Amino acid sequence: MPDHIDRANPETTADAEAAADATAGDWSGEALRAALGRAADWTVDYRKRIEERPVLPDVAPGDVRRALAKAPPCSPEPFERILADFDEHIASGLTHWNHPGFLAYFSSSTRAPSIVAELLVAAVGVNAMLWRTSPAATEVERTAVDWLRQAVGLPDTFTGLIFDTASTATFTALLAARERAGDGVRDDGLPGGPALAVYTSEQSHSSVEKSAIAAGLGRGSVRRIETDDAFRMRPDALKAAIGEDIEGGIRPAMVCATIGTTSTASVDPVAEVAAIARRHGVWLHVDAAYAGPAAMVAEQRALFRGWEAADSIVLNPHKWLGTSLDCSVLLYRDADPFRASLALTPTYLESEDDETNLMDIGLALGRRFRGLKLWVLFRCVGTDGLAETMRRHIAMAEAAAARLAEGGVFELAAPVSFSTVCFRAAREGDPAGEERWNRDILARVNAGGRSFLSHTELDGRYTVRLSVGSVHTEERHLDDALEALHRAAADLSPGEPG
Amino acid sequence: MPDHIDRANPETTADAEAAADATAGDWSGEALRAALGRAADWTVDYRKRIEERPVLPDVAPGDVRRALAKAPPCSPEPFERILADFDEHIASGLTHWNHPGFLAYFSSSTRAPSIVAELLVAAVGVNAMLWRTSPAATEVERTAVDWLRQAVGLPDTFTGLIFDTASTATFTALLAARERAGDGVRDDGLPGGPALAVYTSEQSHSSVEKSAIAAGLGRGSVRRIETDDAFRMRPDALKAAIGEDIEGGIRPAMVCATIGTTSTASVDPVAEVAAIARRHGVWLHVDAAYAGPAAMVAEQRALFRGWEAADSIVLNPHKWLGTSLDCSVLLYRDADPFRASLALTPTYLESEDDETNLMDIGLALGRRFRGLKLWVLFRCVGTDGLAETMRRHIAMAEAAAARLAEGGVFELAAPVSFSTVCFRAAREGDPAGEERWNRDILARVNAGGRSFLSHTELDGRYTVRLSVGSVHTEERHLDDALEALHRAAADLSPGEPG
Repeated sequence: MPDHIDRANPETTADAEAAADATAGDWSGEALRAALGRAADWTVDYRKRIEERPVLPDVAPGDVRRALAKAPPCSPEPFERILADFDEHIASGLTHWNHPGFLAYFSSSTRAPSIVAELLVAAVGVNAMLWRTSPAATEVERTAVDWLRQAVGLPDTFTGLIFDTASTATFTALLAARERAGDGVRDDGLPGGPALAVYTSEQSHSSVEKSAIAAGLGRGSVRRIETDDAFRMRPDALKAAIGEDIEGGIRPAMVCATIGTTSTASVDPVAEVAAIARRHGVWLHVDAAYAGPAAMVAEQRALFRGWEAADSIVLNPHKWLGTSLDCSVLLYRDADPFRASLALTPTYLESEDDETNLMDIGLALGRRFRGLKLWVLFRCVGTDGLAETMRRHIAMAEAAAARLAEGGVFELAAPVSFSTVCFRAAREGDPAGEERWNRDILARVNAGGRSFLSHTELDGRYTVRLSVGSVHTEERHLDDALEALHRAAADLSPGEPG
Repeated sequence: MPDHIDRANPETTADAEAAADATAGDWSGEALRAALGRAADWTVDYRKRIEERPVLPDVAPGDVRRALAKAPPCSPEPFERILADFDEHIASGLTHWNHPGFLAYFSSSTRAPSIVAELLVAAVGVNAMLWRTSPAATEVERTAVDWLRQAVGLPDTFTGLIFDTASTATFTALLAARERAGDGVRDDGLPGGPALAVYTSEQSHSSVEKSAIAAGLGRGSVRRIETDDAFRMRPDALKAAIGEDIEGGIRPAMVCATIGTTSTASVDPVAEVAAIARRHGVWLHVDAAYAGPAAMVAEQRALFRGWEAADSIVLNPHKWLGTSLDCSVLLYRDADPFRASLALTPTYLESEDDETNLMDIGLALGRRFRGLKLWVLFRCVGTDGLAETMRRHIAMAEAAAARLAEGGVFELAAPVSFSTVCFRAAREGDPAGEERWNRDILARVNAGGRSFLSHTELDGRYTVRLSVGSVHTEERHLDDALEALHRAAADLSPGEPG
């Protein structure tokens, strides 16, 4: 009996016995009900006792794999044994994204209703490629996306759909932009055509470069525009870069501005960037994957000024809103360039319904019923509750930043934006020592198991990064992290510059 | 109380009352347990009584959307009400991919263990982008993929990973092929470089063209190679097309052969195609999305001759194996061209682990824990059980084809391959009448609600398509479909050619 399975709930584990006793391979209705009951118990217990686990697991590469059978079994095994193995060998080897001490990257935690929604999604197992292949899946997706649009205050000229990740959403937007800029790229391809360019700041997410590579524009097509001292794209530098390219016969295809950059959560001056893009007829994409949902928080709304001028915007409910991965929303003002860039309907998928077939927007044909978890989340939590959580995270991040700055050891490496704090233990005049010190501090804190922070580089200096975004994080978890940071800094203090 | 919720199971619905009574917005452990219990009951009941529903829902575009609230609620609503709405407005508007009468496209049904696995995946909610961000998720994915490789008899020189869909897998393979063919495409892009070409048969899936468009090669870069009278790629035509392109200064980038084409499930002569690709140093990708798992069936193995010579192969466990959507496995012999084409690690994602980071193979950064459902499936069913299901489907399809051919009304439109049958009610000398007749027959059968078949076009003629692949389909469901087809053909008989 694995430790983490809680047997104290007789009501729901009652017929778990049935699952344990069932002949392996029996997956009749009652066996399924019992197995789901066991998995539900595991789920509740996992969430309740997650703080007993270290955020990062204590495993070396290959450990988990070695604990699993090398070959698949020929015959069915009882579910009970599989769940025990899952608990013992797999759950213990996970990085716990739902641990309240998860303060690394951008958080992607799971609100409880989203778990229930995922079960229903699996139960029906539909494919929303065409409207016809599951009308409700398409229409719930459209509805949930529209609810998000309303919640973040964008005009109803925006519609959209849900992708797996922001990388896919941004790539899809780039294909539409490429088609608009390149005349006939869809049919003729890029070879023989003019060079195209993409503009984004030095602080933008790697997915912009990856999209440009995938789309055949080449990494060299991406102009990483200089940022100001708060890590925001400089409009004058953008203007100059576009002008220079046009001069050189290169066609600007897309400008990607970011609201909430990956390192510091800085906010590009979107209104100014939009004006420049509009003047040159260039597609404007806004990456608001992390911060976008925070437009639901009234006092943050000003940071989104100008984003309604974008051609496309990506926001990830699987980050700050707490739907489970994957749920990335792409909003756009006009579906035509998306269809023009990629839609293609073979005879075997023709249908006569006068309705959008979501497979026409994007590369993937098969589509999970992703809309349900977003729709369920809105209804189970409500927009006020969703906004309140983000407001609380922002306050916690600001308080943490103030305490870091006051402690005399750490200094902030960037203005605090949304719920993300960048800082380092400064060691003037000793860049190598400073980097080593901060690396060691971070490694020590993460090894402690109660907090997990990540790092980045700013102005060429190693920087520690703390981002609050898990629905499970409370003030005491920030206390833990700050205490661990100060303790590590003191323990590992390199003394005088060497 | 919605009709479809079964209240007859006191053991597991016991504390469902708690969920109903719980203050809306309370998602404590017990409320989550209760909600999961209700969703589990719904799931078991849905599967048990699915034949009471029509396969295709009786809804017009917009019906579902109009039944849902236009705006998101500010405050939490009780889960009970949300589940009732789901049952009443959403489930009734789905196309039921798990209905045993689902014989359209390629089936994607869900075996029960996969539903349980999806619940566990949602429970832990991890992101497998880096090994470090969830070691066990990466290692279970590698293990499950290797189990599949062993089960289908491919050598251990193949490794791989799981994508959402075959479209994404094929696109990713094309990017690797593009890099190999194009020198420096990653950095310099395609503009200014040589034209590249992709070779695939007239019968191959639309995702090949869509991938070429997305990758910037252009739809015109795809050579649709002629097929023989059994809809298999003609090696002589492939050879001629490659020769002609090389002559014209166009570089062959990829050959995509198919084992189990979308219309007829025909099998390209992969060994011959591989020899031609090898001679010219061209990347060979094999699309075995549908049929690949059938290599587990001993007597089908001969159809896969030569596929071990491929550079990459895609197989979809979410089709014939019964994992829930999405689960598409890409196998490859060498990871380097994939990394060379796309890998890109920004500072904020650097880690020092000596292990593959799966985000390096593919465009998407965030990655669901997709390996678990495949691993659970293998253990809960066993390779013998998985093979036996496919064997049964193939036998049912062959029997259905024989009965269709013998009935005097329908004729087979292609040789039966795997579990897919193409046929039409023939009307010699009256092509327009024939097409109308077959369209009407198909519409009538699908409107009946007990079977859902799809269509395609072969040799310019409208063709009805029946593919057996659902884990729920039994012989009586084929009986239903054949009876409905014959009845419709008789009722709608156009009489003498007019």
